[in-house]
Order: sequence, then structure tokens, then C-alpha cells
Amino acid sequence: MNKVRIGLIGCGTVGAGVIKILKNQSVLFKKKFNTEFSIVKICDLNPHIAQKLKINKHLFTKKSDDVLNDTSIDVVIELIGGIHPAKEIILKALKAKKHVITANKAVIAKHGTELFKEAIKQKRNIYFESSVSAGVPVINAINEGLSGNTFNGLYGIINGTSNFILSEMTQSQCTFKEALANAQKKGYAESNPTLDINGMDAAHKLAILVRLSINKTIALSNIHVEGITHISHEDIENAKELGLIIKPLAIAKKINKSVELRVHPTLIDKDHPLASVNGVFNAIFLQTDPLGDILLYGQGAGQMAAASGVISDLINLSTKGKNVSRIRMKNISFEDKSIRIQKIGEVETHFYIRFMAIDKPGVLSKITGILGKHGISIESVNQKIRKKSSAVPVIVLTHKAKEKKLRLALEEITKLSVVKSKPVAIRMESLL
Amino acid sequence: MNKVRIGLIGCGTVGAGVIKILKNQSVLFKKKFNTEFSIVKICDLNPHIAQKLKINKHLFTKKSDDVLNDTSIDVVIELIGGIHPAKEIILKALKAKKHVITANKAVIAKHGTELFKEAIKQKRNIYFESSVSAGVPVINAINEGLSGNTFNGLYGIINGTSNFILSEMTQSQCTFKEALANAQKKGYAESNPTLDINGMDAAHKLAILVRLSINKTIALSNIHVEGITHISHEDIENAKELGLIIKPLAIAKKINKSVELRVHPTLIDKDHPLASVNGVFNAIFLQTDPLGDILLYGQGAGQMAAASGVISDLINLSTKGKNVSRIRMKNISFEDKSIRIQKIGEVETHFYIRFMAIDKPGVLSKITGILGKHGISIESVNQKIRKKSSAVPVIVLTHKAKEKKLRLALEEITKLSVVKSKPVAIRMESLL
Repeated sequence: MNKVRIGLIGCGTVGAGVIKILKNQSVLFKKKFNTEFSIVKICDLNPHIAQKLKINKHLFTKKSDDVLNDTSIDVVIELIGGIHPAKEIILKALKAKKHVITANKAVIAKHGTELFKEAIKQKRNIYFESSVSAGVPVINAINEGLSGNTFNGLYGIINGTSNFILSEMTQSQCTFKEALANAQKKGYAESNPTLDINGMDAAHKLAILVRLSINKTIALSNIHVEGITHISHEDIENAKELGLIIKPLAIAKKINKSVELRVHPTLIDKDHPLASVNGVFNAIFLQTDPLGDILLYGQGAGQMAAASGVISDLINLSTKGKNVSRIRMKNISFEDKSIRIQKIGEVETHFYIRFMAIDKPGVLSKITGILGKHGISIESVNQKIRKKSSAVPVIVLTHKAKEKKLRLALEEITKLSVVKSKPVAIRMESLL
Repeated sequence: MNKVRIGLIGCGTVGAGVIKILKNQSVLFKKKFNTEFSIVKICDLNPHIAQKLKINKHLFTKKSDDVLNDTSIDVVIELIGGIHPAKEIILKALKAKKHVITANKAVIAKHGTELFKEAIKQKRNIYFESSVSAGVPVINAINEGLSGNTFNGLYGIINGTSNFILSEMTQSQCTFKEALANAQKKGYAESNPTLDINGMDAAHKLAILVRLSINKTIALSNIHVEGITHISHEDIENAKELGLIIKPLAIAKKINKSVELRVHPTLIDKDHPLASVNGVFNAIFLQTDPLGDILLYGQGAGQMAAASGVISDLINLSTKGKNVSRIRMKNISFEDKSIRIQKIGEVETHFYIRFMAIDKPGVLSKITGILGKHGISIESVNQKIRKKSSAVPVIVLTHKAKEKKLRLALEEITKLSVVKSKPVAIRMESLL
């Protein structure tokens, strides 16, 4: 029987889930994996945690060093989140020759490359499945299940809160505020939901996925990030009429040797598999070569979903022999130096643009004239309900246009006296 | 640099794809996985294959023993398909201390347990990702990505030909015959498509997935198999009106300690992610504990899709250290002896039933009376367009009903003089 001794640092919601699974499945895991997992030390600052979880209080400590200095521990599970002291704890664990499992997206997104380097030096492994979409095995799929492929595109619904809000707005015709309030009521959004709805949470996860799939270390500042707060019900309805749906996507698109990195609400075809990913569900759509398009779908958050990812990491780490670390970490850290990051201004996409304009002769030609002047060619124009002497919505779909040219054109159009509000521009992706 | 010497047995379409990927990606694989893969012997009966693939003819042999007796070979890739001599070749390879990769669903479905046993005895590994849904990493997901979970339900669209035909019938309103002809024209169906459209291909794949996820060795005779040939355009249209769609599903459902195993066209909610899996695409929907619902979607057939799965196997096999075999094979072979197979007669599902009946007073009450007598309770009844003195369709949706009771009721109803054709019964699954 293979014996694995675990030190757990951070025993909040996910940690409690991990303890629960290891307890409930211990007989099964012995039979299936010939492995006995035991948690031998738990570090948490909450003095009531032992009592709450009904665990022997002698297992608990408030000092992470008690775990890190325990030479009997093989694996440290870090579940405190955030950058500090998580980064220092992980480094110390590796230097103490322990393998590391973490669900911490911030520390892997920002310091992954450094941590992987230390792991290679110490001949140890880092597993971090739950840092993206909880236990949905996207990291395992990229690193192992699809290891014979290269990756050309990644389109992820990887923030459940944003997806819940846009799904609610689409399905129940409610406003952004109502949808957010509903998300908070159901526990799908925190009382301060900023990082979820401004796209930064998704940007962290995108950085991790790009590191592994496109083999490029990404700074968060390399990613163009827009939240979902400017999406109105009117645009959702217009999209529906066009056979489209607005989804909060994290996108990495490799064209030749340059990669576009962006997080923003995106119009996609209503028949694409990503379009039916609703509520808090996550999905990652990958364009791979030679396998082609792949989608993984599942619960991207929640205590047990995240805990299940940690447990899968633990099993994979423990059953893959001690010599595996070097090749696995080399694969994870592999950097394709020929790839450069495309500046957002140079990115070309289709756009949906909505203007509010006075309904009088010549207005459309003024607007389309400015777009034409900036080299933006138009796929369709649709002027909605005509009401005399008040502004009406004008919907323009463009062919592929360079972002910086579109921004210049919009600036110019906004200045027209016949245009009555700041134009709304939403990017479109053709994925079918 | 890790060096892996490969013997390839069977060099048809997929084999040629494997050779192509190894050639094109050799530099990348060296960098990422620190591993150099070389094909040192190829066995194929086609005398023109070396010339066709532009490969040194000295690599080729017509005798599989030339590969199996070559002590320099680490891994045998078996791509001849079918049971014999594939089974004997795999056994011989294991006994000669070689790892085995295969894309052969028949041999793994029928003899997997025996082959796994031999692999354990010889301390070698068998990988077989492409035996189900080509390179879509469902086997890797079950064995590794989701290893912390147990599996309670599996609903797979795992035969691309059937899915293409039903998708065509649904989207283009064509007949079964027209859709099949179109599939053949596009190369999605063989000239003899029997095993695809009668469900047997899907049954083989289901047996493999159940072996791994529910940990039970399955004989093909344990699976209730129905093809898609009896699905008519009328039922597809009726389904649409009810917000449902007919999909060719392979189903394994665990209820307590018994498992239902069936392959048949199934009505599912049009908003479920499986409903948007169209054309030749495959998808596997898994109900797991504790992670919850998971879906994997991708190209389940084709030369490069299958070859990519073989290559992923090759990388995973070669990068996971030599001591891994025992635990991996133990996991794969684990048998949960407490699980029994539910007889189809005892299975309970919702049913859609369509009768053609004379439109006169009392007919509905006769039909519903017989259903009631057999303990089948009705969710809704819908009698379609009334034309005097000719048969009209009557659509009945039932609550959960036991298969054998339903069969008895249908037999009795068929005998009624007012019922003008054999009733159509299609099972429904509530997956949302």
C-alpha cells in the first residue's frame, strides 16, 4: 500500500470539502489506487475549526511552518488563496521537498513560471486543477488528455457569476442590477462582486490556460479586460433577433505566431455549444490541431466541485511515480519563445455597434461614411422603430475590423450632432 | 533525452496519421516532453504502403512477429481493429514486456478485463483513448482528470453516423434514407452502415466506458440495444413541439447498486447541452459525485482525430515513469462486485408513445384505460389533427413506467380494432 501524508494549509470551505471526500472515499481509494491518504497536519487561523469539523484538535496548528517543517509530510495542499503568503508557503514547501497542490488562481497566474522553476529544481510537482473552473478537468485535458495536440484557440466561459448574470438577463429579461441581486441571493456572487463582473477573475484563469496550452507566460496586463456591466437588455434582444447570444468569454486566439488575449462579453452564434452554457456553469472551447474543436463543460465553482479537483490532483500526483515530476513540470513550463502578444489595437474582429441617432435623412450615410473612411466595411445596417423627432437605435454589423480603427471611427461618430449617446460596441466571434 | 521505440501493427488510415504527427511534431515533443519517439518497425499486409507513405521500405514487414520479437521495441501500437488476431497480438506484446496502445474498441470491449490482467502480470500498461470517440479525452478524464469522483450516470452521443443522420432529419426535414445517403456521400457512413445505425458500435464503446467509470465488466449482451432506423420525421416534429429532441444515446445509469445499460434513440430536453451536439460530433455527459455534471464534446471520428488520441496515449505512457503501470492498471481493472446489472424489463423511464387511432368517441378512454390497468400513469395526451373516418395520431407522454409493463400495455393496445398501426414508443430522459 502506497502511503501519502498530507499537510493542509487553509481549512475553509474547500479544505473542509477535501477532508470530507478523503474520509468518505478512503476505502475506495485504497482499492482503486492502492493508496492510503492521511491528513497529518492542518494549519488554519480559525480557533473553532477543529470543533466545527469534528477533527482531533491536535492535528491543528496556526503556524504554517509546523506543516512545512514536518519531514513526514509528502504533499502540501495550499488553500488560503491570494498572493501572500501563499507564494512563500508554496516555495518553502517545494524547498522542503514536498509536492504542492493548490486551487489558488492568483498565485499560479502571477507567479506560476517562478514556482514551476523551483519545482523543477527540487524535483517536485505542482498540481493546480481547481485554479480554473474547479474540478472540471481542463488543466488535465490540456496537459495530458490532449498532449498530442497543439492549441490555436481558446474560448472560455470561466466566470460563473458573469455567466449567471448574462444568462438571467437573456432568459428572464431582467436588468443587470436585478440579475446581480439574484446571483447574490443564491450565493453565486459575493457581496463585493467586482473581480467577477469586471473580468479580472476570468483574466487570471485565462493567463493560466494560455501558459499551459499556448506555452506563453502572460502578465495580466497583456490581457485586454472588459466587464459585463455595460451590457443592456436592449443589446441582448437585438442579438437574439440576429440569431446571436452574448456570453462572457475569455479568449486566446493564435494567428501564426501572435496571440490575442482578451476577456469581454462576446456575441456568438446561438447554435454554438458555448451558447447553451447557462447559469453558473463553465465551459472551455478549445481549437486544437489535429483533433479539432473540443469542449469541456461543468460546474466551475462550489465547495465540492473545487474539492473534487484537489482530490483528483492528489490521486494523480500520488499514483504517477516519483520520476514523473521532471517531465511533467518541463511540459508545463515549456515556453514557446517565438510567440508574441498582439496589442489590442491591432486585433481584428467583427463588431456589433449600436448608435442612438436622430431619425432624419442623411444620418445613416454620415455614420456609414465615417466607418468607410476608417476602412471599416459594413455587413449590415438596421435602423429600428422610427419615431419622429426622437433618437432611434441604429445597429451596424461590421466585417472584420481593426480595433484601433474602430475606436477612431466611434470617436468621430460620437461627435456628430445627430448621434445622441455613446455608441455601444460588442465584439463578435464566428466559432461555427 | 527519454527515447521511446515504437512498433506499429496495422498501417491504414489512422496509422498513417500517427506517422504524420510524429514526424511533424518531433522537435516540439523533444522540447516539451524531453522524449524522442521513433517508429522502428511497421507491420502491414499492403505491399504498396511504404511507397505510398514515402517511408523506408526496410521498416516494413508483413509478419507481426517481426515486431513482437524485436527486443528493442518499448511500445506496440495495434491499429488493425477487430478481435482476431488483435487480441493475440496484444497478449503477445505484453508477454514480451512491451506496453500497448490500441484504438480497437471491439477487443477492449470484449476482452479488456483479460488484457488488463495480463498487463498487470507483466507490469506493463495498456492505453486505449481512441477506442471511444477518437482523441476526445474521455478515457483520460474518467481515469485521471476526474479520479476523485464516482460516476452515477453516463449519457453519450458516441456514434457519429447515427448522430449525423438524426441531426439531418431534425434540421433539414429529410427522411432517414435521404440522411443516410447524405452521410455516405460525405464519408460519414460506410457502404454497409449496419453496426453504426443498429447501435452496436455505440454498445461496444459504452461497455468500455462503464468498465472504467462504474467499475463493472460488461458483456455486450448485458446492454439493451436499439438502432435509429424506426425514427420517423413525424416523431421528430412532435418532439420539437414538446420542446424535446431525439438523440442517439448510450446510457449507463446507476441507481443504488444496480446499473441500467442501454443504447437507443432518446428524447431529451432541447435546452440540455447534449441537444446542441449535431452532425458527426460526439459528446459524453457524465453525472459525477461530488463534481456534478460534466460534458466532453469533440470530433469522435476521422483519421487525425483518432491519430491524436493515439499520440496522446503515447506521450502519457512514455512520460509517466515505469512504476506507474501497476497503479494505473489496478485502477482501470478495479471491479465493484456489489454492482448488478438491471434487466431491461425492470428499467423505469418516461415514454413518448404515438398511436394511429380511429377518431371516434371512446377511443382515447380505451387506450388510457389499458395503460392505467398496467399501472402506467399519464403525464399528457395529445390527439393531433382530426380528419373524419381516418386514423389520427395520438401522442401520450407517460410518467416513469416499468419497461415490461409498458410492453404488455402496448401489446394489448395494438390489438384494439380502433388502433391502426404498431405504436411507436421512444424513451425520454430528464437530464436538466
